[in-house]
Amino acid sequence: MAKKYVYFFSKDKSDGNTKMKNLLGGKGANLAEMCTIGLPVPPGFTITTEVCKEYYENKKKYPQGLKEQVSLNLKKLEKTTGKKFGDKKNPILVSVRSGAAVSMPGMMDTVLNLGLNDDVVEGLIDLTKNPRFVWDSYRRFIQMFGDVAMEVPHSAFEHALEEVKRKIAKQKGIQDAEDLVQEALNKAVPDTAMDVEALKELVIAYKDIYKKHTKENFPQDPQKQLWYSINAVFNSWNNDRAIAYREINDITDLFGTAVNVQTMVFGNMGEDSGTGVGFTRDPSIGTNKLYGEFLMNAQGEDVVAGIRTPLPIDELKQENKRVFEEIQQIRGKLEKHYKDMQDFEFTIEKGTLYMLQTRGGKRTAAAAVKIAVDMVKEKLIDKNTALLRVTPEQIDQMLHPMFDLIDEKKSTIFSKSGLPASPGAAIGQVVFTAKDAEDWKADGKKVILCRVETSPEDIRGMHASSGIVTARGGMTSHAAVVARGMGKCCVAGAGDIVIHAHKKEMNVGKITVKEGDWISLNGSTGVIYIDKIKLIPAQVTGPFNVLMKWADEVRKLGIRTNADTPADTKIAVEFGAEGIGLCRTEHMFFEGERITSFRKMILVAPEVKKLRDAIYQEKDPEKMKRMEEEIQAPLKQYHDALAELLPLQRTDFEGIFKELKGYPCTIRLLDPPLHEFLPHDEKGQHELAQAMGISFNKVKETVESLKEFNPMLGHRGCRLGITYPEITRIQTQAIIEAALNVTAKKIKVKPEIMIPLVGHVKELDSQKKIILDTIATIKKDRKLRKLPFDVKIGTMIEIPRAAVTADEIAKSAEFFSFGTNDLTQMGCGFSRDDSGRFLTDYVNAGIYPIDPFQSLDISGVGKLVEIASDLGRKERKDIKLGICGEHGGDPKSIDFCHKIGLTYVSCSPFRVPIARLSAAQATLKENANTKKASSQNRKKQ
Amino acid sequence: MAKKYVYFFSKDKSDGNTKMKNLLGGKGANLAEMCTIGLPVPPGFTITTEVCKEYYENKKKYPQGLKEQVSLNLKKLEKTTGKKFGDKKNPILVSVRSGAAVSMPGMMDTVLNLGLNDDVVEGLIDLTKNPRFVWDSYRRFIQMFGDVAMEVPHSAFEHALEEVKRKIAKQKGIQDAEDLVQEALNKAVPDTAMDVEALKELVIAYKDIYKKHTKENFPQDPQKQLWYSINAVFNSWNNDRAIAYREINDITDLFGTAVNVQTMVFGNMGEDSGTGVGFTRDPSIGTNKLYGEFLMNAQGEDVVAGIRTPLPIDELKQENKRVFEEIQQIRGKLEKHYKDMQDFEFTIEKGTLYMLQTRGGKRTAAAAVKIAVDMVKEKLIDKNTALLRVTPEQIDQMLHPMFDLIDEKKSTIFSKSGLPASPGAAIGQVVFTAKDAEDWKADGKKVILCRVETSPEDIRGMHASSGIVTARGGMTSHAAVVARGMGKCCVAGAGDIVIHAHKKEMNVGKITVKEGDWISLNGSTGVIYIDKIKLIPAQVTGPFNVLMKWADEVRKLGIRTNADTPADTKIAVEFGAEGIGLCRTEHMFFEGERITSFRKMILVAPEVKKLRDAIYQEKDPEKMKRMEEEIQAPLKQYHDALAELLPLQRTDFEGIFKELKGYPCTIRLLDPPLHEFLPHDEKGQHELAQAMGISFNKVKETVESLKEFNPMLGHRGCRLGITYPEITRIQTQAIIEAALNVTAKKIKVKPEIMIPLVGHVKELDSQKKIILDTIATIKKDRKLRKLPFDVKIGTMIEIPRAAVTADEIAKSAEFFSFGTNDLTQMGCGFSRDDSGRFLTDYVNAGIYPIDPFQSLDISGVGKLVEIASDLGRKERKDIKLGICGEHGGDPKSIDFCHKIGLTYVSCSPFRVPIARLSAAQATLKENANTKKASSQNRKKQ
Repeated sequence: MAKKYVYFFSKDKSDGNTKMKNLLGGKGANLAEMCTIGLPVPPGFTITTEVCKEYYENKKKYPQGLKEQVSLNLKKLEKTTGKKFGDKKNPILVSVRSGAAVSMPGMMDTVLNLGLNDDVVEGLIDLTKNPRFVWDSYRRFIQMFGDVAMEVPHSAFEHALEEVKRKIAKQKGIQDAEDLVQEALNKAVPDTAMDVEALKELVIAYKDIYKKHTKENFPQDPQKQLWYSINAVFNSWNNDRAIAYREINDITDLFGTAVNVQTMVFGNMGEDSGTGVGFTRDPSIGTNKLYGEFLMNAQGEDVVAGIRTPLPIDELKQENKRVFEEIQQIRGKLEKHYKDMQDFEFTIEKGTLYMLQTRGGKRTAAAAVKIAVDMVKEKLIDKNTALLRVTPEQIDQMLHPMFDLIDEKKSTIFSKSGLPASPGAAIGQVVFTAKDAEDWKADGKKVILCRVETSPEDIRGMHASSGIVTARGGMTSHAAVVARGMGKCCVAGAGDIVIHAHKKEMNVGKITVKEGDWISLNGSTGVIYIDKIKLIPAQVTGPFNVLMKWADEVRKLGIRTNADTPADTKIAVEFGAEGIGLCRTEHMFFEGERITSFRKMILVAPEVKKLRDAIYQEKDPEKMKRMEEEIQAPLKQYHDALAELLPLQRTDFEGIFKELKGYPCTIRLLDPPLHEFLPHDEKGQHELAQAMGISFNKVKETVESLKEFNPMLGHRGCRLGITYPEITRIQTQAIIEAALNVTAKKIKVKPEIMIPLVGHVKELDSQKKIILDTIATIKKDRKLRKLPFDVKIGTMIEIPRAAVTADEIAKSAEFFSFGTNDLTQMGCGFSRDDSGRFLTDYVNAGIYPIDPFQSLDISGVGKLVEIASDLGRKERKDIKLGICGEHGGDPKSIDFCHKIGLTYVSCSPFRVPIARLSAAQATLKENANTKKASSQNRKKQ
Repeated sequence: MAKKYVYFFSKDKSDGNTKMKNLLGGKGANLAEMCTIGLPVPPGFTITTEVCKEYYENKKKYPQGLKEQVSLNLKKLEKTTGKKFGDKKNPILVSVRSGAAVSMPGMMDTVLNLGLNDDVVEGLIDLTKNPRFVWDSYRRFIQMFGDVAMEVPHSAFEHALEEVKRKIAKQKGIQDAEDLVQEALNKAVPDTAMDVEALKELVIAYKDIYKKHTKENFPQDPQKQLWYSINAVFNSWNNDRAIAYREINDITDLFGTAVNVQTMVFGNMGEDSGTGVGFTRDPSIGTNKLYGEFLMNAQGEDVVAGIRTPLPIDELKQENKRVFEEIQQIRGKLEKHYKDMQDFEFTIEKGTLYMLQTRGGKRTAAAAVKIAVDMVKEKLIDKNTALLRVTPEQIDQMLHPMFDLIDEKKSTIFSKSGLPASPGAAIGQVVFTAKDAEDWKADGKKVILCRVETSPEDIRGMHASSGIVTARGGMTSHAAVVARGMGKCCVAGAGDIVIHAHKKEMNVGKITVKEGDWISLNGSTGVIYIDKIKLIPAQVTGPFNVLMKWADEVRKLGIRTNADTPADTKIAVEFGAEGIGLCRTEHMFFEGERITSFRKMILVAPEVKKLRDAIYQEKDPEKMKRMEEEIQAPLKQYHDALAELLPLQRTDFEGIFKELKGYPCTIRLLDPPLHEFLPHDEKGQHELAQAMGISFNKVKETVESLKEFNPMLGHRGCRLGITYPEITRIQTQAIIEAALNVTAKKIKVKPEIMIPLVGHVKELDSQKKIILDTIATIKKDRKLRKLPFDVKIGTMIEIPRAAVTADEIAKSAEFFSFGTNDLTQMGCGFSRDDSGRFLTDYVNAGIYPIDPFQSLDISGVGKLVEIASDLGRKERKDIKLGICGEHGGDPKSIDFCHKIGLTYVSCSPFRVPIARLSAAQATLKENANTKKASSQNRKKQ
């Protein structure tokens, strides 16, 4: 028996099904599948991908038997439709389309309306009473066939079209009709402005062009038309575009393309015909109800062209109740079969319904969640499938206000060079200083703070703003990190904006925005508009919580949050965080008046250190005595300032512990360099001097002496605690005392003290000793035999040296928390504040697939994380491993953390739900892979 | 038979030898050894370390038989010396000293003059006719015995001594004698000012103190004195000091201490007695000739006290020819036995020579080299031993001028907080700007350039200076690196200096140094003096070259140099470099007028980039056309500036290739961030604007726009080449054209093009493509089928990410060069310019044993190097691995590079000889370890 090269499909009968994708291509298999479940698909047949393969293997010769099989199937098609190929009275028209097993959109060729010729045109006009449509179809067919099958240059047809249009323009009396550029001409004379005569003229012109280029007449024989088109599709498999596409997308394991020959149906054959699109559920809110729109006596492109307004699908009940009910039935069939919301196209030809296409429907975030949850209730899918139906990005969308899509589309862009640094949308009036932001907000205004970059001094102003824009800095710049922590919209590193803060204006090219002007930020895309766009509020609804609960049942990773205040902690716990993975103590120092106490400490600390060093080195006991007297005054100031901070920090920790309700809290000791806390401009220094009652010069000198060339690699992290052990001591005291106070109120606490920026185990040891000594002193003072809670001491792994010596460090550390921001900075050598300038080039050039600050650079920084995890576990089997960089809220990075077996991820409060879902998906994907692998193994055995 | 607990030694007979260190302790074994080779050592005996062990194991009881053995040996001692213990007429006095197998200086106790009592004192006065000496010895003995053996507080004796001195002071009529502080009192009444009466009084007072604290009289029985002292020595083994010392120095495998009881001899027993020190060769220049000095009728401390001036040892011939000749004989014996230059002490007691001690003698660098080479000629040692006799630091000393030691000791220190950044010594007049340095030098003056820190703009000023001082920056700061490269003395990061450049002065505390004042720098110690110290020139003599040749025969590591100019290359090749491991192309841009062309390029490059990006993103063809017109002018300026640089670079490379005479040359493409090349002060910017004929604002704006928060992690290295591919292209062109030109002159060339700051293999690939394309164009232009030389393309491994993904990178790179400066910066997270502030704390706290910029942090950064080497070789078996950071010239780091099998190290020209010796020593040490291990294995089998 000859091999089967052609597969027939029609409503009642189908040779193929959806599993035959490799043989029939994606489109062919889908059409077969639709027929299998009894959908009224326009009948047709598919020539297999094997034919394509053999065609190329045999020097472009078709395998034996193909001609016969095509011929047989054509006959079957005529029989099924009751129409005839090339018949003047009742002609059958077909489309010829490519379709490989993997979708290669736009890469290969298509021919529509095949079967038309001079005779059939006449017959079709009789049938449709729509000569304009028929002539338009004919001219399009000639052009498409010529272009696709015979390589007639596209431009030749375009030129002829232009000529006709120019003539019409002249007739319409349009000035300079001869000289209009193409764009203007198309505007003055759209395709729809061509009447039957013009189209007839065009058909003649097109035929001439065809002849001129092919040296033969346009073929009137449909058989010839068909075979030329089939050839064209198979040849298009190896055109440059298609080869390049497969190379770029790394598609290597395909035989070739299939060819689909399908009856064409027309919705414009009179008032009993029509066309429409439908969704099996409401794609914007997810309600389980047919949704869609239709037009009678129209083709799909009429809807697209926007000439007529389509009607809501419910009104089809009035037009044709039978068809409407058929669609309702199909809706049920589709969901039962595909187990997902479907988006479908249909055409009604003379009262008969045809389904042209069905596919998974696009939906909003809210709809995605509702549909997934509802379908579980309806027993269409199980919980795990539901979890995979919603993307983490959709969860993100739901947690923030978004712009009205249509309103946003109409708005004028100010800048699109910024990074989507913190999601959501915001509108407000522009201000250029943190102070102004606070003042305007106090006056009841909504503001957007725009700065070159932000620094810790701006925190209060950032709090007062609806959104933040910076001209410099990347995804983990100060602005971005703080904004995400606050759940505030932020566009960072918009490099094309030039900010003139002194003039209180900014510009991109010639567009200038002044103080008080309204702008709108899209923190999810990074685009800034010079309009006030309509906002749609966040939607955290019932189904959302149901889905999150399911995610928690599945995931293996713990989810913690990065939170520095009781308020943030509260939000995060409500969002499902199971503890704090990173509590940055320095942010506490900026609130209210505490910055003053903190600055007092900084202003005297370097002097204390200098004198201490001198005493350490001095050998003369007389001099030493004198120096020890000299150090008393600054030492007192230093201790006094620290003593002022103690109760403030203690209160903060108490608040946080209370909100955590027994969840663990990883507290990082002071990390940033001291100069970050001092004003860098002379004005601020003058103010500080006055406020402190010291000389301006003293302030200026201290600021100067603390300046660093590369602060990221400078005097920060545990290095501060080594130089100034009192800071470590006072922070430990605040933590332990707060924990004791909260425990006394019958609330459980689990403090975990984390030493930042450790590179060498001895750094950790030195700090650990101070912490243990401080705890011992507290126990002694309070006469406690042991603390009524457990304290863990661990470290950040954020320096490459720490990663490769993690076995040594694990001897001392009870837990590791990967600070992937710094690990990326030092691992890749990218300053997060500067790399914005070239990282875009890098991502564009494909050096990194994505900004490594946004999504963990798995092959590089990830390798360091893996090395450290392995070494850590080797030394201490049960070591707790977490990640607390910005990557803790990134789905891809979370997937990686799951794979290498970390204990938890920690992210900003607003990303906690995203992390919960991502962690669940990571588990599900792993399970699927394991299943696949084991079933493959079974097969092999 | 009872165990042997006591070992006797005397000139003619010795129970022990030098191999019995574990049993007899270091001192005991050495005394035995000296006797064995027939040296006239004052006889005595050693109680073994086993006694100490058993003493502690048996609750401080001595093993049986010890008393008897000591008693027997005492008898033997009396017989040998012909003197008697406690005898009034002919008493024997002994010392009792501790001595473990490992030297623990000052940690345990010693008693001298044991055997003195009220009777013996009288007898000894008769013998010596020196009552002052005898009474002084007696009071010292009482104090030492009381303190050491009976725990009488030291302060009690001190107090009594003070009383006596105060009385003398009053007698001398010194004002306020009662109220003088101790320091002043000791100055007014030194020990030598006490006469016999005063000393007698003191003896009485000391005896009273002794009785008061011990409740018994000072023991007159020498046996009792002896056993009390032996107890004291054994007990001192476990005193707090000794335990702490062993802990700190990780000494764990010792039994205990031995006790040495040795006859005391006195050089002050009359004119036929004397004392002296000798060297078997001249320790300052190495001549093979007895060297030393002596004093007749004196004790060792008389020489130290400086009351009498010792005579050159040659004059001993006149004093006592027999003894002189005996010393000459001993000199020969010592060298024959110890195979090294010895430093010995001797005493002549009544015409009899006694050798008290001999040990390896300290020597100057020049002497060390000469002695090592001479001894090989004399067949005393072999070449390998000679190579191990000279330290790399000594080689360093020889290559630079040094201060006259005595003159330096007398000079006033200005600052000692600086780092020894570039060795040697320099004197000069202080200037504060690079410009002044050039001008003053032009006027024929010697200058020292003092700056807070240096930048590339200062290069010419640095060249004009004799030495450089900076107040900030570490061992690899700009100043340090450049100075070492120039072989110029530099003290960097002298943190206690406050520089007021505008006032043209600087100060440390109250000492102010003004412009034009003379200062002296010791670049090997980091000390700065406010005097003009006498300089001793560098000494690269014949033996030096002989030793270097031997080093080359032994070492396995290749030695290359870091050189950027033909002049440096010449020096390095003369010093033995086998190629350039790092040729930094950017340094070339600072010379002469080229900085102007380079700055032209920088000032227009960002504009070109901005326009290019905009064109890349623009979709509107009309706008694109306009932008492409707009870019033409800046693009031309950009290309013009680059074209100006091409011939200059080409000429440089030609010069370097010529000097290399066929050795390979690794050329690193442009590395530093562009802003380093622009002036940062407004004055400089004004000048630049004028020179370029553009507006000041344009210059200022460019400088501002290029500023970075963390330039070390910013837009530099290959990131420049990715943004500005033309820079890579022009540099490649210069290299290849230069190589062609030099080849045409029949000189071989081996260019190796090195891409800096690669973190991801795709960065390397992108640059490699540009290089290969450029080479292809040159070949096409010159109609060459292939280049007449080999070009290798490789990369720096200086980013941690590159280290852990080195297997990927090795797919593309033909060689790796470890840039350990940057690898340390990023691996440890230390900015080399900022870490000076806390790294000292770190080294002091023992976190790092040594500044990781000075000597490779082997356990951390070294691990990254090892990981990368292993991964690299896994992928490409024959990959060439080098190191070109500052560590390439550090002996410990070189030893590590040898161990992990690198191909070569590269260091600054002046360190090439150091590297040659270090590499040879690394091989020798490895061979020794292998031998040791295999012999241990043999033993086990």
